Amino acid sequence: MIKLFQFKLCPFSRRVRFTLEEYNMRFVMIDEIIWNKRKEFLAVNPGGSLPVLIDEDDNVIINNYAIIEYIEEKHSHTTSGSSLISGDLISKAEIRRLVDWYDNKFYHEVSKIILRELIDKYYMKDRIDDKSPNMESVRIAQENSIYHFEYLSYLISSRSWIAGDFISQADIAAASHISCLDYLNKIDWDKWLEIKNWYARIKSQPAFSSILGDHIAGFQPPNHYSNPDF
Amino acid sequence: MIKLFQFKLCPFSRRVRFTLEEYNMRFVMIDEIIWNKRKEFLAVNPGGSLPVLIDEDDNVIINNYAIIEYIEEKHSHTTSGSSLISGDLISKAEIRRLVDWYDNKFYHEVSKIILRELIDKYYMKDRIDDKSPNMESVRIAQENSIYHFEYLSYLISSRSWIAGDFISQADIAAASHISCLDYLNKIDWDKWLEIKNWYARIKSQPAFSSILGDHIAGFQPPNHYSNPDF
Repeated sequence: MIKLFQFKLCPFSRRVRFTLEEYNMRFVMIDEIIWNKRKEFLAVNPGGSLPVLIDEDDNVIINNYAIIEYIEEKHSHTTSGSSLISGDLISKAEIRRLVDWYDNKFYHEVSKIILRELIDKYYMKDRIDDKSPNMESVRIAQENSIYHFEYLSYLISSRSWIAGDFISQADIAAASHISCLDYLNKIDWDKWLEIKNWYARIKSQPAFSSILGDHIAGFQPPNHYSNPDF
Repeated sequence: MIKLFQFKLCPFSRRVRFTLEEYNMRFVMIDEIIWNKRKEFLAVNPGGSLPVLIDEDDNVIINNYAIIEYIEEKHSHTTSGSSLISGDLISKAEIRRLVDWYDNKFYHEVSKIILRELIDKYYMKDRIDDKSPNMESVRIAQENSIYHFEYLSYLISSRSWIAGDFISQADIAAASHISCLDYLNKIDWDKWLEIKNWYARIKSQPAFSSILGDHIAGFQPPNHYSNPDF
C-alpha cells in the first residue's frame, strides 16, 4: 500500500492527502515531526522535507510538485474518471499558474510565516533560544493575506471554482493553505463571505473530511474548523 | 508566433528559453525590466512576475511551472522527438523533484539572494534608499551554495546527467540558476571540477547558445562565461 509521510499542519501534505482520497488510492499516513530529524525518515529523504510518498513498489517520491504530477498521471492511466488537472492545454496552464500562486507566493507571504511562528517554534522549543512566536511577524503575514483574499474573492466571484468551471488542484492548493490558517483561527470569516462560501463547498468534499478531522496535540482548533457548514 | 516576456538574468526565464529552443518552437523575446512596472506588461500579467508566454492564439501563460508543463505537453503532441521530462512515472518524478530543488530550495537559499543584492537593487536604485548591495548577504548565499554544490557533485558523479541517463528539465533548472551566478562571476570553478565538466556539456548544447550570448548593460560577464570550453 502507498505510504505518505506527512504533517497535519503542512499545506503541501494536505494537498497530497486530498488528491489520494479523491482518486480512491488506498494509503497509510505516517505523522512526521520533521523538527525531530528522525533517522529513519532522513534515510528515506535526506533533504528532510515533506511530503514524501512511497508507492506500492517502494519507489520514493519527494515533494509536492513531483508527487502531485505522479499521482495525476498514474490516475489518468488507470481510470476514465475526472481529473484535478483537466481540460485543454490552456485550462491546465491556468490551474498550474494558480497552484504556483498558492504554493509559492501565498506560502512565502502568508502561510509560511504564520506556521513558522506558531508551529515550527513550538516543535523546536527545546532547541532554540527565542521560542516565543513573533506576533509582529504574524500580524504582517495577516496583513499580506488581505490582497490575497481580495484576489481570491475576485476569482471565485467570476468563476465556479478558482481556475474555472470545475474543482481543480488550484482549489485544493488554496484550501490546503487556508485550512491550516483556519485551524490556527487566523481567518476573519465575517470579512470574506465569498471565500467562506467557496470554502464551505471545499469542506463538503468527501476527500476533505479527513483533514477536517485533524487534531494536533497542543493546538485546539476553533469550533467551526471541522464544521462543513461553519 | 510565440512571445516570451523575460529577463536575461532571471533563472526561470532562462529555462523557458532553453526549452523553446530545444523543441525548435519559434518565439520572440521581450526584455522586461519588471522593476519599471511597465503598464503594458502589467496589463498582460497583473502579478508582475516573469516569465510570461503568449502563445500563437494569444493565450497568456504565466510562471515557470505552468509554462514548462504546457510546452512539454504541447511538444509531446506534435512530435515523436525526445522530451526533457521523459521515462516512466518514477523517472519523471525524480526529474520534477530536482526541478523543485533548484527552483525552490536553491533559489531561496542562494540565487534569489545574490540576484536581489546585485541586480534587483541596481534596477531599483532610483526608488530605494539603501541601494548598495549587502555583501554580507551575498557572502552567506555563497556559503549556502557549498552544500548545494556538494550535492550536485554527488549527483553527477553517479549519473550521466542530474536526474539520470538523459539530459532533462532538472539539468536545465540547475543550469539556469548556475549560469546567472556565473554571469556575475560568483562561482569558483576550480573548486568544483565535476560541476565544471557537467556545465561544459550544458554550454555545448545548441539550445543554450543564446543564453551564453546574453549581455546586460551595466554588468560585464567574466571572459569564461560565453566560452563553451571555459
